[in-house]
Amino acid sequence: MAHNLQDTMALLERTPGALDALLRGLPETWTHHNEGGETFTVVDVVGHLIYADRVDWIPRARMILEHGENKPFDPFDRRGHVEECRGRTLPQLLDEFRRVRATCLDDLRELNLQSEQFQLRGRHPSLGPVTLSDLLATWAAHDLTHLHQISRIMAHQYRDKVGPFVAFLGVLKCDGHGG
Amino acid sequence: MAHNLQDTMALLERTPGALDALLRGLPETWTHHNEGGETFTVVDVVGHLIYADRVDWIPRARMILEHGENKPFDPFDRRGHVEECRGRTLPQLLDEFRRVRATCLDDLRELNLQSEQFQLRGRHPSLGPVTLSDLLATWAAHDLTHLHQISRIMAHQYRDKVGPFVAFLGVLKCDGHGG
Repeated sequence: MAHNLQDTMALLERTPGALDALLRGLPETWTHHNEGGETFTVVDVVGHLIYADRVDWIPRARMILEHGENKPFDPFDRRGHVEECRGRTLPQLLDEFRRVRATCLDDLRELNLQSEQFQLRGRHPSLGPVTLSDLLATWAAHDLTHLHQISRIMAHQYRDKVGPFVAFLGVLKCDGHGG
Repeated sequence: MAHNLQDTMALLERTPGALDALLRGLPETWTHHNEGGETFTVVDVVGHLIYADRVDWIPRARMILEHGENKPFDPFDRRGHVEECRGRTLPQLLDEFRRVRATCLDDLRELNLQSEQFQLRGRHPSLGPVTLSDLLATWAAHDLTHLHQISRIMAHQYRDKVGPFVAFLGVLKCDGHGG
């Protein structure tokens, strides 16, 4: 299946601005509480997006181009956001996400990928062979899975406030599906 | 439970800008396809948010203040967005959502609600008694349920592109929970 890099990049370019418009200046009621236990706050999710941009997508694309399936990707640290978030406010994290995403998209443009390269394969440490196309599509879908998560975390903060309307609010029936 | 109107309004104020930043100028791959059958496209969701602001939240708040439980709310037309969307592009709908939301928030401020009024009750045509607090909290949670839906509709467009990474993407396991 052909990869439409313009579609992928159009989404990747917009996510930092969308999160900024949604989150900057919001009361901590919405942004600093989680869904219970070890789950993420909205702040954690922004930290996770920064960390993933730093260590995951472009570094893995380069691994595919340089090493193919010979060398597996470094495993992703699901707690990597902790260091990203340390000592930073949410507005600072939103600024940082905008910066790191812009840098990553510049890096992606500089790779100047040609259509035949999208089917090149790398090796994921747990999933096995994946193509460059899989990886880039997942970068975009990963933004969306975390936008989905952010909307769910925020809605959770109003779970006890909506009364009988809970019956109509799909987001309050979402169990997170592991992410 | 006390209703924090500032928290509610802070979210309601931000949703149009967040959707604008996410959606304006995106390729139709993301915005003009649905999840199959009679499900909504992203464009439909924006039309639904406009329609709900027009006929639902403030008109129902006024019903509670004027009629209490004596008169049920008008039923909500789940196909009301069709007329909102007719002949309008997505950028036009985003402009319209920003306008109608700003007007609704001006109307809400003019109601000058006092803390004791949040527990006033109205009558929902199918759910029965609901408080003004329930209604206003649901307005905010309704924005979030549709942001959750938009991220899910968009992720669905890349369902067949992410390869083995589908295992890690919670949004692709979400069945919509009816909304």
